[in-house]
Amino acid sequence: MHPKLYRHVRESICKGALYVLTGPALASFTFPDCTSGPLANVSVCDPSLDATTRAKALISLFTTAEKINLTVSTSPGVPRLGLSSYVWWNEALHGVADSPGVTFSADNKSAFGSATSFPQPITLGAAFDDDLVYAVASTISTEARAFSNNGHAGLNFWTPNINPFRDPRWGRGQETPGEDAFHLSSYVKALIAGLQGTEYASSGSTSNNNHNTNSNTTTKSYRKVTATCKHFAGYDIESWNGNFRYQVDASINTQDMVEYYLPSFQACARDAGVGAFMCSYNAVNGVPTCADDWLLNDVLRTHWNWSSTGSVVSDCDAVQNVFLPHRWADSRAGAAAAALKAGTDLNCGTYFSHHLVEAYDSGLIEDADLDTALTRLYAGLVELGFFDPAEEQPYRSLGWNDVNTPEAQNLARLAAAEGTVLLKNINNTLPLTVEKMQGKKVAVLGDWATATTQMQGSYYGTPPYLHSPLYAVQELLGNESVVYAYAPSYTDPTSDSWDAIWEAAGEADILLYFTGIDDTVESEGNDRVSLSWMGSQLDVIGDLAMSGKPLVVVQFGGGQLDSTPLIENPGVGALLWGGYPGQDGGTAVLDVITGAYPPAGRLPVTQYPAHYIANVSMTDMALRPDQETGFPGRTYRCFTAQIALSDTTSNTFDIASLITNCSGVAYLDLCPFATVSATVSNTGNVQSDYAALLFLKGEFGPAPYPLKTLVAYERAHNISTGLNSAATLELALNLASLSRVDESGKRVLYPGSYCIELDTMPALASLNFTLTGKETVLDEWPAAPTGRKGSGTPEVGPDYYVGGLGTVNDAGGEIPLGA
Amino acid sequence: MHPKLYRHVRESICKGALYVLTGPALASFTFPDCTSGPLANVSVCDPSLDATTRAKALISLFTTAEKINLTVSTSPGVPRLGLSSYVWWNEALHGVADSPGVTFSADNKSAFGSATSFPQPITLGAAFDDDLVYAVASTISTEARAFSNNGHAGLNFWTPNINPFRDPRWGRGQETPGEDAFHLSSYVKALIAGLQGTEYASSGSTSNNNHNTNSNTTTKSYRKVTATCKHFAGYDIESWNGNFRYQVDASINTQDMVEYYLPSFQACARDAGVGAFMCSYNAVNGVPTCADDWLLNDVLRTHWNWSSTGSVVSDCDAVQNVFLPHRWADSRAGAAAAALKAGTDLNCGTYFSHHLVEAYDSGLIEDADLDTALTRLYAGLVELGFFDPAEEQPYRSLGWNDVNTPEAQNLARLAAAEGTVLLKNINNTLPLTVEKMQGKKVAVLGDWATATTQMQGSYYGTPPYLHSPLYAVQELLGNESVVYAYAPSYTDPTSDSWDAIWEAAGEADILLYFTGIDDTVESEGNDRVSLSWMGSQLDVIGDLAMSGKPLVVVQFGGGQLDSTPLIENPGVGALLWGGYPGQDGGTAVLDVITGAYPPAGRLPVTQYPAHYIANVSMTDMALRPDQETGFPGRTYRCFTAQIALSDTTSNTFDIASLITNCSGVAYLDLCPFATVSATVSNTGNVQSDYAALLFLKGEFGPAPYPLKTLVAYERAHNISTGLNSAATLELALNLASLSRVDESGKRVLYPGSYCIELDTMPALASLNFTLTGKETVLDEWPAAPTGRKGSGTPEVGPDYYVGGLGTVNDAGGEIPLGA
Repeated sequence: MHPKLYRHVRESICKGALYVLTGPALASFTFPDCTSGPLANVSVCDPSLDATTRAKALISLFTTAEKINLTVSTSPGVPRLGLSSYVWWNEALHGVADSPGVTFSADNKSAFGSATSFPQPITLGAAFDDDLVYAVASTISTEARAFSNNGHAGLNFWTPNINPFRDPRWGRGQETPGEDAFHLSSYVKALIAGLQGTEYASSGSTSNNNHNTNSNTTTKSYRKVTATCKHFAGYDIESWNGNFRYQVDASINTQDMVEYYLPSFQACARDAGVGAFMCSYNAVNGVPTCADDWLLNDVLRTHWNWSSTGSVVSDCDAVQNVFLPHRWADSRAGAAAAALKAGTDLNCGTYFSHHLVEAYDSGLIEDADLDTALTRLYAGLVELGFFDPAEEQPYRSLGWNDVNTPEAQNLARLAAAEGTVLLKNINNTLPLTVEKMQGKKVAVLGDWATATTQMQGSYYGTPPYLHSPLYAVQELLGNESVVYAYAPSYTDPTSDSWDAIWEAAGEADILLYFTGIDDTVESEGNDRVSLSWMGSQLDVIGDLAMSGKPLVVVQFGGGQLDSTPLIENPGVGALLWGGYPGQDGGTAVLDVITGAYPPAGRLPVTQYPAHYIANVSMTDMALRPDQETGFPGRTYRCFTAQIALSDTTSNTFDIASLITNCSGVAYLDLCPFATVSATVSNTGNVQSDYAALLFLKGEFGPAPYPLKTLVAYERAHNISTGLNSAATLELALNLASLSRVDESGKRVLYPGSYCIELDTMPALASLNFTLTGKETVLDEWPAAPTGRKGSGTPEVGPDYYVGGLGTVNDAGGEIPLGA
Repeated sequence: MHPKLYRHVRESICKGALYVLTGPALASFTFPDCTSGPLANVSVCDPSLDATTRAKALISLFTTAEKINLTVSTSPGVPRLGLSSYVWWNEALHGVADSPGVTFSADNKSAFGSATSFPQPITLGAAFDDDLVYAVASTISTEARAFSNNGHAGLNFWTPNINPFRDPRWGRGQETPGEDAFHLSSYVKALIAGLQGTEYASSGSTSNNNHNTNSNTTTKSYRKVTATCKHFAGYDIESWNGNFRYQVDASINTQDMVEYYLPSFQACARDAGVGAFMCSYNAVNGVPTCADDWLLNDVLRTHWNWSSTGSVVSDCDAVQNVFLPHRWADSRAGAAAAALKAGTDLNCGTYFSHHLVEAYDSGLIEDADLDTALTRLYAGLVELGFFDPAEEQPYRSLGWNDVNTPEAQNLARLAAAEGTVLLKNINNTLPLTVEKMQGKKVAVLGDWATATTQMQGSYYGTPPYLHSPLYAVQELLGNESVVYAYAPSYTDPTSDSWDAIWEAAGEADILLYFTGIDDTVESEGNDRVSLSWMGSQLDVIGDLAMSGKPLVVVQFGGGQLDSTPLIENPGVGALLWGGYPGQDGGTAVLDVITGAYPPAGRLPVTQYPAHYIANVSMTDMALRPDQETGFPGRTYRCFTAQIALSDTTSNTFDIASLITNCSGVAYLDLCPFATVSATVSNTGNVQSDYAALLFLKGEFGPAPYPLKTLVAYERAHNISTGLNSAATLELALNLASLSRVDESGKRVLYPGSYCIELDTMPALASLNFTLTGKETVLDEWPAAPTGRKGSGTPEVGPDYYVGGLGTVNDAGGEIPLGA
């Protein structure tokens, strides 16, 4: 649901409420009184029992009518039992965010009037720094708990959005960390550990990692907040050519499903122990996901061995969509029953409370079905300490002092700087040091120059401040050194707004141009229809480029634009991408421009040429190219570009021996293979970060072969310059790193020749090794029932995975490390 | 440009202004002082001379630099000559509207704080009543002059948008009166007469026409305001699948061009004598229209014999688009020169003022080119009385008392009621008289129930009031009889907002449901991606329909939705379409619901089935179907449905004799053929209107043949019931009515058998006649230069024009006239 509608919806909820809030006016809920309330002597209040046992004891007290009423997102509770109402719908995509369960005080200067607003996930993903992700998530959960303790939020949050950013047009791609399945899986494990307060072991380590999380809480016995991995699965279309998210039936073959669409969700459920999932609006291969018993039970709960306390909530109102427009069920009651029985435990909306009554009366569901769902939901609350004494839970003492701390605010700035990506730098345009700008007039131009709310992207709350690029430059250089002018926006370029540009540029010695796209062209419900820069923007920038003055262009927005015209224009000195950088975005981007922070982010999505979408239907979910139809394939793994190689070392491994070493590891794919040590030297003349991306190449397993696959990444910080500047990164690989998924969905280790490369376009270093012996299955796959569409064998085309994670315009050699 | 951006643009203009406003703060311009100012003795101030002579005398005084500065929409004037700055950009699509040249007082209760807001053209078009169009336009121009006289507006307005509503997805289709070329041509003649203050002769007449215009001004010697026919030509895509309006190259064959895309513009230029044209963003057959010498000179000025005082303004900033993204010219100066030389006289934006200097210096243009443009622009101002004594111009005395008159406000309500269309009525659901509702509880439901600004569509100002449907029902029945609840909107249907619906519906005896689409899915820059009702809306309405209570659904929005599910649902008693009904929309629609006003509007666009767009590329500009590609064709003329015939009379005409009778008629196509008298009886039991549509059928001229073509329409008002209720309409036909356009663009009269039908699905009456003799050209066509794309011969397919203007769901027999 679009955030703009929250307030309206909240009003509507109040008008049509079936319940009365029992706590203070603002409270999202109240904790039950386990000392002297009606539940005091019920086992749910006994901390010595396991969560499921405690939840069952509670649920046994409910009437059927009460149970049905408890299956919706604005839960009325059971007042006669002292069980409070509870609003399950809380958002925290990149900071505590406006949503039905979250309220900010009206005055943003007063307590709980604001919370730290970090960069959107697309920018955080660009940092390729999971320690940073963990630190950010830990801060968000600290602030969320502080809000919760004071009646301003619930205990569970509907974040992260972990669908891969498959198509460059997707309006919600900005909510994800990028397009790569491995990257998403790694990122989300760090994120969930930070949100849920579980221990986080970095997959690798660097010799000079100096991050600190600002959460000093070490309580591990209670969950900090519950995260919710969404949207399960195959959801990545808002509206394209008559296809709406509510009605799209994604046709996905098994190999793509297992290899691309599901790994991030497996990481959530099996490896990170996330507390909740959200099923999506769309259908997959004919079945609406919220009514898909195979997906929610066979895959999620059984194959991934997901926690018995994990619950599934429907997107809003995906249960309704099972009836209309999917027409999966022939009645409203039938749709509600199908969703509940398939494993959807909670309905965002009111479809369950309205139509499960009829479903129950007509025998489509029984009490056991309701009990299963409610047991999961309340066991999840038990794990959050809902029924336990506050004094034993350090999280319960978090308060307003723990929100917007200096550490949190610095982290927001750091995260934005780390996520800033250098796409072009010629003539030593960057760093544009303060020294270089001294005594000069700097023009701050463009439609993003005064961006404030824009910098937050979607799903945001009230931040303590929003520092625009113009603000940052004025703070740094003083108002008198700065001239500002607006310029044509992406959506409506008319020259009536241009005169000021010429005047300002004429006056200035240095030109900083801030522009890009925003939620007017990419947002929830709204996919893009073009990857091109607007003609007027290219015209204005092109005209400025003829001035001979230093010109830095900063591109914002989650989706990429084809920047070929800017890359090719010799008058454009530097091009940076900043995504949606959050509350301190202007300052952070300026940090990178001035060299105060190194430009070491990497694009987490491919920058396609503008004509790409003309050949590609958004609803074609295939990843592999198809020679017959001319389908070019998707993501960096499939995109054509050139790379160069240089070998350095090699080795041989026997598959059977590798497997033998896995005893004690629960899942073979997680079994360690080796650690790659990468030593990186800073040949530039200023201290810098380096985000190491490790790719696997080789012709093994089913054809067509990926040209390369991301298997590890790690970010080294603050590498100093000179001869002794080397930083060593340890990049851990497991058997999954070397595996492929076959057409039936099995993850398999194949004998063959492998090559590992560090970095892309060109690779900085590479090493070869060989696997010998027999191919071995690492992970079986639960086949979907027959009769579903789209589970067949994919077409086999030519080899196709080409290009680098990053962009076809990746400036490659033009970005001197720390230059 | 999108109205939302006006304020921003206005600020930007001020920041970057090249000029200083010379009048009072709010004044859009000041009239030159022809008595004692610098121009007093210049011929431009001599009312006895013709407009062009006077303009030339003025222009001869300008320096080249001054001339260049005067070619942009925010004209600086020439202060040294006492020539004021002038903002050419004034909007008045359906009432005086916010725009750079138009300002409303901040307090909407004070003078010039508001103006009458009529229905959007799509609703006004649905009335099929050109006398009404004339009355509305006369009122708008009266209010516009009043604003102008008081420094709140200019004298020229960039209205109407008269591109045919070709594709149901077009976001700006709402700004047009519909899809039919004849309808648009007839409508626009009435509109321009009303705006420009020229005499208007209704093409037909009805025996009981009782309209009055509220303009009693009979001054014919001065133009009231200058209208601007836009967007010339082939403009009807905002953004579809990577095609942006700024960059689209519309491929249109000559036959479609002459027969469909241009007739409304010919009516503007040749027949209505409009004062200005606007060229468009797109290219046609490879040439950006603002740089198209053939279109602007050969077609518009020469072939259509357009006034020498007529000027062409570019859309904002279409001159820039000639450079980027069209890349028609290889430099900025080249693009500006190409546009000026092709006949674009004025540039909305600043591209001319910036780049014509270089064009001049490099010899691409000379003074004569600038003189030609400026002569047209200033001759146009001369015709508006710009240089003449105020006391001789009654229009100059219009003031605040002439704005928002009771007559104007009644006309706004009447126009909305006339434009309301009945799509379904069963079980005598309508009229839902006040008597029927007495003592009952009425539920007012839906996302449009409280619509206010929504009702105005796009390009609006501040109206004196906005009466929502809820307001209207409460006024009529009293608050205590009404319960209101919101419901899911089109863009974000979540059941959190539904509970109130069930509660309200449960309480009520009668259900009124107001819904549809709005500018979130159809607007400038934003084409629709679906023609379906949202699943959630159908679900809610479907659930309400099961209640057995009378249920009336009113659908708003300019684009049609496929209403098959509502038509087929026996629980939906009535379905009305209201478009964007303007300031009194709620009241007007309720007038129709209660029977206070008859439901006699007709859809001016085809209601396509939802799947239609899946087969049709928006950029395929063809109108005819293509058997090979499966392209189904466009508009009611091409749509498959059944009709029934019944002959009544016949006759024979010799073509040569028909032509002989045309001596004295300037254009053969305008030569009268015959008048069809239609006598209509009211078989219902309440007084009603009847909008008569006359269609021509027959196999003559080039195949494929249209199944039918609209050739005349007329609306009879207030037809009483009973035996003596007949109203007679006189529907005038001319030779153009009988003609076809051949592949080379010639309009030709062919011998053959013709049939005229009154009304559609089924026809109420028909008559046959025959043309004998030799085929004869009525209008030659200036061929475009060779080397342009797309001017070839269209594919010949099967006969295809099927269906009725209106809708595939046209309720036909289910709408008892006046029942």
